[in-house]
Amino acid sequence: MRAAVIHGERDVRLEDVPTPTLYTGSGSDGLDAVVRVVAACVCGSDLWPYRGVTPTNEPRRIGHEFVGVVEEVGENVRTIRPGDFVIAPFYDCDMTCVNCRNGVSTSCLHGGWWGSEDRIGGFADGGQGEYVRVPHADGSLVATPEYPRAELIPSLLTLSDVMGTGHHAAVSAGVTEGSTVVVVGDGAVGLCAVLASARLGASRIVAMSRHETRQALAREFGATDIVAERGDAGVAAVKELFDGIGADCVLEAVGTKESMDQAIRSARPGGMVGYVGVPNGGPELPVRPLFQSNIGVNGGVAPVRNYVEDLLQDVWSGAIEPGRVFDLEVPLTDIAEAYAAMDERRAIKTLVRP
Amino acid sequence: MRAAVIHGERDVRLEDVPTPTLYTGSGSDGLDAVVRVVAACVCGSDLWPYRGVTPTNEPRRIGHEFVGVVEEVGENVRTIRPGDFVIAPFYDCDMTCVNCRNGVSTSCLHGGWWGSEDRIGGFADGGQGEYVRVPHADGSLVATPEYPRAELIPSLLTLSDVMGTGHHAAVSAGVTEGSTVVVVGDGAVGLCAVLASARLGASRIVAMSRHETRQALAREFGATDIVAERGDAGVAAVKELFDGIGADCVLEAVGTKESMDQAIRSARPGGMVGYVGVPNGGPELPVRPLFQSNIGVNGGVAPVRNYVEDLLQDVWSGAIEPGRVFDLEVPLTDIAEAYAAMDERRAIKTLVRP
Repeated sequence: MRAAVIHGERDVRLEDVPTPTLYTGSGSDGLDAVVRVVAACVCGSDLWPYRGVTPTNEPRRIGHEFVGVVEEVGENVRTIRPGDFVIAPFYDCDMTCVNCRNGVSTSCLHGGWWGSEDRIGGFADGGQGEYVRVPHADGSLVATPEYPRAELIPSLLTLSDVMGTGHHAAVSAGVTEGSTVVVVGDGAVGLCAVLASARLGASRIVAMSRHETRQALAREFGATDIVAERGDAGVAAVKELFDGIGADCVLEAVGTKESMDQAIRSARPGGMVGYVGVPNGGPELPVRPLFQSNIGVNGGVAPVRNYVEDLLQDVWSGAIEPGRVFDLEVPLTDIAEAYAAMDERRAIKTLVRP
Repeated sequence: MRAAVIHGERDVRLEDVPTPTLYTGSGSDGLDAVVRVVAACVCGSDLWPYRGVTPTNEPRRIGHEFVGVVEEVGENVRTIRPGDFVIAPFYDCDMTCVNCRNGVSTSCLHGGWWGSEDRIGGFADGGQGEYVRVPHADGSLVATPEYPRAELIPSLLTLSDVMGTGHHAAVSAGVTEGSTVVVVGDGAVGLCAVLASARLGASRIVAMSRHETRQALAREFGATDIVAERGDAGVAAVKELFDGIGADCVLEAVGTKESMDQAIRSARPGGMVGYVGVPNGGPELPVRPLFQSNIGVNGGVAPVRNYVEDLLQDVWSGAIEPGRVFDLEVPLTDIAEAYAAMDERRAIKTLVRP
């Protein structure tokens, strides 16, 4: 089959790789499945190796968001069946271990990451390709009620990562009916965080964005206010909107020291920052201002699998359309363009069709 | 009157100072009261200037925890009356501003700290003395239903700080019915955090303590397990108690880099650290391990005034006896011994009677 392979900075190629099969080697558990990918996409975090921010020491498979159709299942798979249309989270997990049961499937005791070997020695393919072998199929995958209409597929694909991640930011910050919210970051995750906050009943949602098209989508997703300023001016603009003190909940969806600083300073005393931007370079959190104003920090790598069933209902009914974050679609053969368009900020998020 | 004055490292003296009166100078608001102190105490945080960890550049009044009887009130005081027995939090606050209404009275827009000028130019005395002028008396003070029996006074005094602060750690970490809890720190606040967790329904409470008398009191306050180890061995012991993954809620009541590290490493994926130990030297929080395991950090300088009414009910009924953290009592004339006993760890907490 053909799948994306990253070789180095700004060098992602479509290559012939082995077509996955169920794992039958030593230690096989009969719990895996093979999925034919219907739609995949490029993640903001894929841009880090693409831009050389994190080094690529040897060519490796890339991609971690996909939806598709189950081709084959292992002998011990109980709920997922061939022919099912399925959503995969950006990692695999069994949904039975204590961490999965606690709602934190990204810390699954037996889980792993796409594009690498799983714990029994089989290979779990990256999502940017024609097929993927999926460990723990009953845990990792969620089947839709039936084969979806074409227009639903982009929104279903966001449940792999960005919509679940935006939702996690909102849940981590404690967004609920009547909350005031600020979202720092206008990428696909930030925009989904706006949508998630509106869905959870926030009374006022400020999107911090300098890009007109993203501002417009933020408004359609439920933002009530836009703040284009950053730094001190951004903090002042936010405080002015909220009694001079800041917002109840601030959702951080970037991952830089600057964006986290912006987030902390935008929260009111007693407020909570929900953060899902992968910390870029590991900025430390400044404990003094957090302590003095009782501002909490909560979040992390989003356990999106735990949210799929809940969010799926609203996607299926059309109540939310997170798939609108996709503003470019390319065939898998143009995978290089899928990356370049996001790298150059010509696209918010690129959908890829094998 | 006589009140405690700190002059420098290990030099706290009882001195003659002006007896406070209602403030009638420029900008006076008629909202203050004068309270005769019935009982005061020494706080762990008072030991910082006492030990020279924070410098004392010139002699200044010290103390911030007291209960007493109202002598006199300003013309605009509405609810507090002369003769009331009152509990004062470790700061003053109006309880009407947006931050007080949000439950964060330590961020009161018009509040201040004992032992310094208030915002209108009057002096708010420290608690370790015979009398205190209290700004915003209706906000700052809570009157008890009647004059308390003598044996209730130590427990009422803990509502000034340590019991409310331990409770804030528990609330910030989300302790609720059935939670598993680890408490890092066996000082008066840590012990009160154990008691607060038991009161909130925690199913299992681990006290990390190496001191036999404190271990014993922790058990009487509701600790189900004691872990005497620290560092890697302490983390391993805690994880072994909780499915190998750690506790739901970890309460940090020390404030050093080592104790915060211990706390973060004792939390399970998706767990929450509630911290109330004043950050000593401002250790930064390590964002990577927090992010990877979705461990949140919440808390800060405890808004104890917001908790007084709730906790007072249980103190008044005898349901909780946080006053048991006082294991030494001295007259105000022995204020130097009150500090020395805590500095040398001969006492958990010293109660002082004017």
